[in-house]
Amino acid sequence: MKNDIIIGWIGTGKMGSSMAGHFINSGYICNIYNRTYSKAKPLIDKGARWCNNPEEVALKSDIVFTMVGYPEDVEEVYFGESGILKALRPNHICVDMTTTKPSLAIKIYELVKSMSADFIDAPVSGGDIGARNATLSIMVGGEENIYNKILPLLELLGKNIVYQGKVGSGQHTKMCNQIVIASTMIGVCESLLYARNAGLDSETMLKSITKGAAGCWSLDNLAPRIINKNYEPGFYVEHFIKDLGIAIEESTRMGLKLPGLELAKSLYDKVKNMGYGKKGTQALMLALEEISLIKQ
Amino acid sequence: MKNDIIIGWIGTGKMGSSMAGHFINSGYICNIYNRTYSKAKPLIDKGARWCNNPEEVALKSDIVFTMVGYPEDVEEVYFGESGILKALRPNHICVDMTTTKPSLAIKIYELVKSMSADFIDAPVSGGDIGARNATLSIMVGGEENIYNKILPLLELLGKNIVYQGKVGSGQHTKMCNQIVIASTMIGVCESLLYARNAGLDSETMLKSITKGAAGCWSLDNLAPRIINKNYEPGFYVEHFIKDLGIAIEESTRMGLKLPGLELAKSLYDKVKNMGYGKKGTQALMLALEEISLIKQ
Repeated sequence: MKNDIIIGWIGTGKMGSSMAGHFINSGYICNIYNRTYSKAKPLIDKGARWCNNPEEVALKSDIVFTMVGYPEDVEEVYFGESGILKALRPNHICVDMTTTKPSLAIKIYELVKSMSADFIDAPVSGGDIGARNATLSIMVGGEENIYNKILPLLELLGKNIVYQGKVGSGQHTKMCNQIVIASTMIGVCESLLYARNAGLDSETMLKSITKGAAGCWSLDNLAPRIINKNYEPGFYVEHFIKDLGIAIEESTRMGLKLPGLELAKSLYDKVKNMGYGKKGTQALMLALEEISLIKQ
Repeated sequence: MKNDIIIGWIGTGKMGSSMAGHFINSGYICNIYNRTYSKAKPLIDKGARWCNNPEEVALKSDIVFTMVGYPEDVEEVYFGESGILKALRPNHICVDMTTTKPSLAIKIYELVKSMSADFIDAPVSGGDIGARNATLSIMVGGEENIYNKILPLLELLGKNIVYQGKVGSGQHTKMCNQIVIASTMIGVCESLLYARNAGLDSETMLKSITKGAAGCWSLDNLAPRIINKNYEPGFYVEHFIKDLGIAIEESTRMGLKLPGLELAKSLYDKVKNMGYGKKGTQALMLALEEISLIKQ
């Protein structure tokens, strides 16, 4: 057991469980909390120590990671009645790996700093597979010396770890990532819809276009699922909608008008309204079919 | 000099010159025609034989390739007063490599077949670099036995050569390619605009996102040019507008509504109206800046 640093982990969903698991596997003492106890049970069986709330996690740990769902969840975990801030000590380090608002990262940072502790925003991309295989991309914002201090821990979770600048920069970078994916998904789905209606064989069509200027991750990884009408989630529609909402809020605040992002948000809202919030982002295809009045 | 087959080549622009050049370099007799003589001159200096019109090219050649600009140009070259059809003989093979309307490919095919000759549509992607290095993607439509006959010639021009099905399928596949690129470019430009306004370092941001789920050719190849405000053409805005117009026309005919494609077309029209028709597709950034009222 490593005793030099005690880790706290809040949020043991699909991503968080795998991530916290890497710390346990590496021999760290790991205090955990999750809203739903049952989801934390497998980690407890592996040696994690259960805490009754975020405050207790903070009390018993040197560094507290959070990986929860929505900005509201992050706020509850930090500012709630039994939140992290209640137990914060000088030199505590808090790392929020949830994808959330850059403005919230800044708000937490300021409060945490006022208590002589530190805060880092470090959202990830790479999905549940990346979490499981410790190949996540981690986008880090905050003070660089704190980043350097926690880098060995982040290296247990991901491969492509990049320091992006002051607090909030990690979240902003994640927004850039989601903005590219949003419009790319539209292009990929529209292309498959066109192919099918033009009488092409979609798989043969992909052989022509995946290696050239149209080539992209979504075409390689999600187009085959769409062809097979497999809409099971890699990444949930409703989580993507959360991210796109944050991106629109932030870009509007900056005075930007991003029509592709807005279009993607409206299409994904449609997917959710059709009842597919828990499907994968490739379910965008279903909204495009509906718009063209194509029966499923 | 290879004498088994005499090649005709119509259209010696940026792409066509490189492509015809590969045939000449391989020892084929090559009859060429181009609307502007001066652009054909370098090929003539390499041994190509000048013809005064498409009819003369067809008359003197066994197989005629066309690589011109717009559907109207293809029509002129085939149906014009001194067009290819005037000199068509049985067993002649015509190969249109221009990106044009699937419906036009079908029209030419039917006329050519009625004269006991053959027609193949074989648009390409890969740009001027692909043409120069003979690494083009070639998407082929038409009769499969004719495809097999000309495959050794296509292999002198490209690497990823895929038979897509009956006549028009090559053009349809190219449309799928352009539909993906259209929306992807919106995502890439919006992401860079967001990054700049969020105070991120755009190059550092790219380090986080290019290898993951946002990864795409445009991000790898065009984002760095956009960051450097380099809008010189790889692929012309006005040619892309032509392609998007065809894609909209065809998809509308199929009863499809593709909102991403429509958005891209309207944004690229804006780029052209701003005077950037001869810039590269990455100049989409300039229209997005204008929409957000950002000064160049």
